[in-house]
Amino acid sequence: MESSDAAPRRGRPGYDQSSMLEVIVEVFTDHGYDASSLGMIANRLGLSKSAVYHHFASKAEMLEIALERALGALERVFDEAEAEAQAGSAPGGAVGQIREIVRAAVLVACAQQPYLILLLRLHGNSEVELRALERRRALTARLRAIFERARSEGALRDDLDPGLAARFTFGLVNSLVEWYRPDGPETPEALADAVLAYVRSGLRVNEVADFR
Amino acid sequence: MESSDAAPRRGRPGYDQSSMLEVIVEVFTDHGYDASSLGMIANRLGLSKSAVYHHFASKAEMLEIALERALGALERVFDEAEAEAQAGSAPGGAVGQIREIVRAAVLVACAQQPYLILLLRLHGNSEVELRALERRRALTARLRAIFERARSEGALRDDLDPGLAARFTFGLVNSLVEWYRPDGPETPEALADAVLAYVRSGLRVNEVADFR
Repeated sequence: MESSDAAPRRGRPGYDQSSMLEVIVEVFTDHGYDASSLGMIANRLGLSKSAVYHHFASKAEMLEIALERALGALERVFDEAEAEAQAGSAPGGAVGQIREIVRAAVLVACAQQPYLILLLRLHGNSEVELRALERRRALTARLRAIFERARSEGALRDDLDPGLAARFTFGLVNSLVEWYRPDGPETPEALADAVLAYVRSGLRVNEVADFR
Repeated sequence: MESSDAAPRRGRPGYDQSSMLEVIVEVFTDHGYDASSLGMIANRLGLSKSAVYHHFASKAEMLEIALERALGALERVFDEAEAEAQAGSAPGGAVGQIREIVRAAVLVACAQQPYLILLLRLHGNSEVELRALERRRALTARLRAIFERARSEGALRDDLDPGLAARFTFGLVNSLVEWYRPDGPETPEALADAVLAYVRSGLRVNEVADFR
């Protein structure tokens, strides 16, 4: 919003890189990455441009570090789920693994909300953006592989394509960042339960009857 | 993309307002609405600024007409579903109505994809944007009311809040515009079937067993 650009946060205690990043991501999200200038960022922080450059080499570096918060957290969700599966400590087969991933991804969406919003709104006009979009595609491919295993275990509905199921699942989880509020009525854990309830039996192979 | 800004489409036959709008929405989506200037738009169209002004009074008017394509189409989906329910010609109660709305909304998402992408990425920095976001909220409220009726008919899971179910449903349908391609392998009708399969029984009240 223009009004907050005109009201820099002077007199705040010194920023560390992490708290600067929060403010920078607000600017990126309000105006889009392309339209955000270093002047706008310095102004919103109440700092000189050279003070900002003390912490970040470039606007592209700010974006890269911010996107890492979302992408790194989501990649760890998959790393952990896959390590558990390899160690044989994941009950419920591939469908159980999908449930664990959905739950953990909802928690990431809530915890890293501003960084995930930034990721989801990228236009792909720079190298940093293109690399981030490639990492997003890799995450979808990992989820698709687990849905394919669920199908080979006989646990996925025949009429649901694993690739579509992976995209729908990320679409659903990612959409939370559009309206989730940390001070709202739902805790991240309750939201994770609700998402799982929403898709709970839709993925199952055994249906007793159509519900129309 | 910068490269296409530098390559205006000269020598094209005369534009009507609708074909101009397609190109304008590409500019808005590539750069964000805030960062898109009339100069960029005229350049991408290969027209003078005054020729663009012959068709649109302002950038805000372009945005308003573009958003109407997405919002008007979604509002008609609800108008028709509600008219059918009032006429008593909607089988399957509220859950059947939700299915019809999901199916029709997927078709709108595919048919109006560029306009829906624009709607979903608004930053809310102008009056036109704020009115559009208000209409989006009204659509969610209408879907919530139908989920509430499904619950009162005993057809919705007890552990699923109708307001969350409405948001999840729009989140899932809206996410299609991020990756849907008109020349891709899935027809809009097949995507609608897949979305319904994904959430099919997750909404039902009667479950025979947990699937873990």
